[in-house]
Amino acid sequence: MSKFAKRMHSMEKSAAVIRNLFGAMNDPEVISFSGGAIAQECLPVEIIHELTQDIMQREGRGVEALSYGPVMGVKDLREVVVSDLVRPKGVKLSVDNAMILSGGLEAMNLMCQVFIDPGDIILVESPTFVHSIEIFDMFQARCIAVETDENGMNMEDLEAKIKKYNPKMMYLIPTFQNPTGITLSLDRRKKAAQLASEYDIVLLEDDPYRDIRYNGVELPPVKAFDTTGHVVMANSFSKIFSPGSRLGYLVANERIINKLADAKSATNSHTSILPQIICAEFFKKGHYQEHHRNLCAVHRIRRDTMLDAIDRYFPEGTRRTQPDGGLFTWAELPKNINTTELLVEATTNPEVKVAYVAGEGFFTEGGGKGRNCMRLSFGAVPPEKIREGMAKLGKLLQTYESRYSFTVSS
Amino acid sequence: MSKFAKRMHSMEKSAAVIRNLFGAMNDPEVISFSGGAIAQECLPVEIIHELTQDIMQREGRGVEALSYGPVMGVKDLREVVVSDLVRPKGVKLSVDNAMILSGGLEAMNLMCQVFIDPGDIILVESPTFVHSIEIFDMFQARCIAVETDENGMNMEDLEAKIKKYNPKMMYLIPTFQNPTGITLSLDRRKKAAQLASEYDIVLLEDDPYRDIRYNGVELPPVKAFDTTGHVVMANSFSKIFSPGSRLGYLVANERIINKLADAKSATNSHTSILPQIICAEFFKKGHYQEHHRNLCAVHRIRRDTMLDAIDRYFPEGTRRTQPDGGLFTWAELPKNINTTELLVEATTNPEVKVAYVAGEGFFTEGGGKGRNCMRLSFGAVPPEKIREGMAKLGKLLQTYESRYSFTVSS
Repeated sequence: MSKFAKRMHSMEKSAAVIRNLFGAMNDPEVISFSGGAIAQECLPVEIIHELTQDIMQREGRGVEALSYGPVMGVKDLREVVVSDLVRPKGVKLSVDNAMILSGGLEAMNLMCQVFIDPGDIILVESPTFVHSIEIFDMFQARCIAVETDENGMNMEDLEAKIKKYNPKMMYLIPTFQNPTGITLSLDRRKKAAQLASEYDIVLLEDDPYRDIRYNGVELPPVKAFDTTGHVVMANSFSKIFSPGSRLGYLVANERIINKLADAKSATNSHTSILPQIICAEFFKKGHYQEHHRNLCAVHRIRRDTMLDAIDRYFPEGTRRTQPDGGLFTWAELPKNINTTELLVEATTNPEVKVAYVAGEGFFTEGGGKGRNCMRLSFGAVPPEKIREGMAKLGKLLQTYESRYSFTVSS
Repeated sequence: MSKFAKRMHSMEKSAAVIRNLFGAMNDPEVISFSGGAIAQECLPVEIIHELTQDIMQREGRGVEALSYGPVMGVKDLREVVVSDLVRPKGVKLSVDNAMILSGGLEAMNLMCQVFIDPGDIILVESPTFVHSIEIFDMFQARCIAVETDENGMNMEDLEAKIKKYNPKMMYLIPTFQNPTGITLSLDRRKKAAQLASEYDIVLLEDDPYRDIRYNGVELPPVKAFDTTGHVVMANSFSKIFSPGSRLGYLVANERIINKLADAKSATNSHTSILPQIICAEFFKKGHYQEHHRNLCAVHRIRRDTMLDAIDRYFPEGTRRTQPDGGLFTWAELPKNINTTELLVEATTNPEVKVAYVAGEGFFTEGGGKGRNCMRLSFGAVPPEKIREGMAKLGKLLQTYESRYSFTVSS
């Protein structure tokens, strides 16, 4: 039988992480801190029901919803992106700079289609989003990790690695980062845009969590400091509207967005039309403001519950991040705990049945880095279930040391 | 600025054809025989309106529609694929062999992700679908054309080219082919499956038009003759349900479909959920039968009108195909007519304003092959507009010889 392409081998490891992650999300018996979904209670089912009725009855709109549409996306939704979502954050753009995608993840795929040849270097945070790693692996890119601290990616190390590796692309999740929840500081945002421009390298800013903020001051996206068109900003409607609709968008200058449109056309022609129209109407009819307030209120409680539960139930020596928003906390456990090994027991032991994402998959460096870490998502789990799940997981962790002799080589 | 990837150069020519094609579809002043859309009158707007209301009100279904879902697709729709669409055609399969896609075109993309390394050979029909060529170009495959006649791809030439080129994949549109409308004969279908098996090469069968048949006897897909899992069958809901929903599916054995699911996950996670549920309900509630009858009746008239108009208005020496179904006719004009050059005048001259797709883009051989041909789609144009547009186009063609001195080198 025809052999698989080389890219399928390079993505094998990260693809396995993703399969596990989605598998755990779909098992109803497991309390899952693994996926990045928002609270089910926040899905605007009623509003979308009403909007859809209206759309399908309106002259011409029902036909539009079912017909082929533009590669760049439905104009109404591109207008929403410009006027409601991007321009208020300090980014100058017109609708010609905005393209609708089939989910935020498609941005990574299309950017690789357009820029990445096998062997090209992408500079990434350490750790970074495992699903993006999977995509970069599929395109046979070589990811190089840049040092990251509590203020996000270290700009000195970024510049050093630009000089050393001559990268094709830089990839940043600046706000409530996936997996750590950390936010890139203002001065580093400016510096990142400046470095992209100075060294003439495209920077992909992936910013899907930024609008779910619980405290602290909103920061402009890196794209707001981009004066030369080197930054491409990717975002998603999955967190602020609905993940199942598979809607995202990206913002780029004309030269880049035209190429991205060619790649999009050769991937799936265009994004499904009805979800685009529904989403546009959701914003244009003014439903977003109240929805957004509710979204932040609900998830803030879950974040607080999760942080408290880590402090309460996890073993001594655990360190965790303090996210100001988004859906993720990152826990660094005592060195001897191997979260990859533990995951099987955590998800299958009838006394536990709790899922998280093991830390190792978020590091592109390999060598066991992050093996004592885990990403804990609190978005999709009600507070009482967060406490229950974390208590069970904590208990498992507390008994871990006495049962395993395995020690991570440093 | 970061250079574009090599694949963006290899797809430049075919991407330009696609941009023109979609551009012409969206200009309301142009009578467009370019896109492959079905009749607007056949879009099931009313039924989908009712179904959507019901779905969004039903306990749990509204939440499902807006939540993350499985990479392989919504189970209800996969069941429809198996029981309503594929098994009745003689293909043995279970739901585990069926994956839902974001439009039929995604099958070509994912198959390339899984199988094609740069430089790999894909054997294709001559001519073949320009949008698939765009995708194969993006993956830097080398397309080799196999001789094609009024019964489809020539199997002797296919076998000879398998031996000569050691291809990675074979690509066939067996029924009412795009762009010619030609159907692969029964014996050749069997032979194609046998050759795939014998030479151990994956065969991608792209079959989106098969259910819109106006006359003649239905033939089993190539997949029905596949006993070794070498054939992957791709299909679309764009012609039998709605193009704007961007829904398609593919059928493959377990080894291949698991890899395709990894590639799908790294492309857009999964297909939008609400359109999948609506489409599943459309079939499960029994709406398809009447819709299908109407679809065939409406398009049969358009096909007949188009064939009659070619015979009536096109210059002497024109040859055309006689499709038994689907959406396309292929016209071969006198040698001195250059359809690529003519297209600019046809779409912009206020006396004409008619679009078609120039033949050249459907040939992977290059060298001006097909320069005197055009693909004429009759699906989206009402009969009176077909007559009007073809009369205008015919008039332009009749005057062509006296105005241009350009002659195609043979």
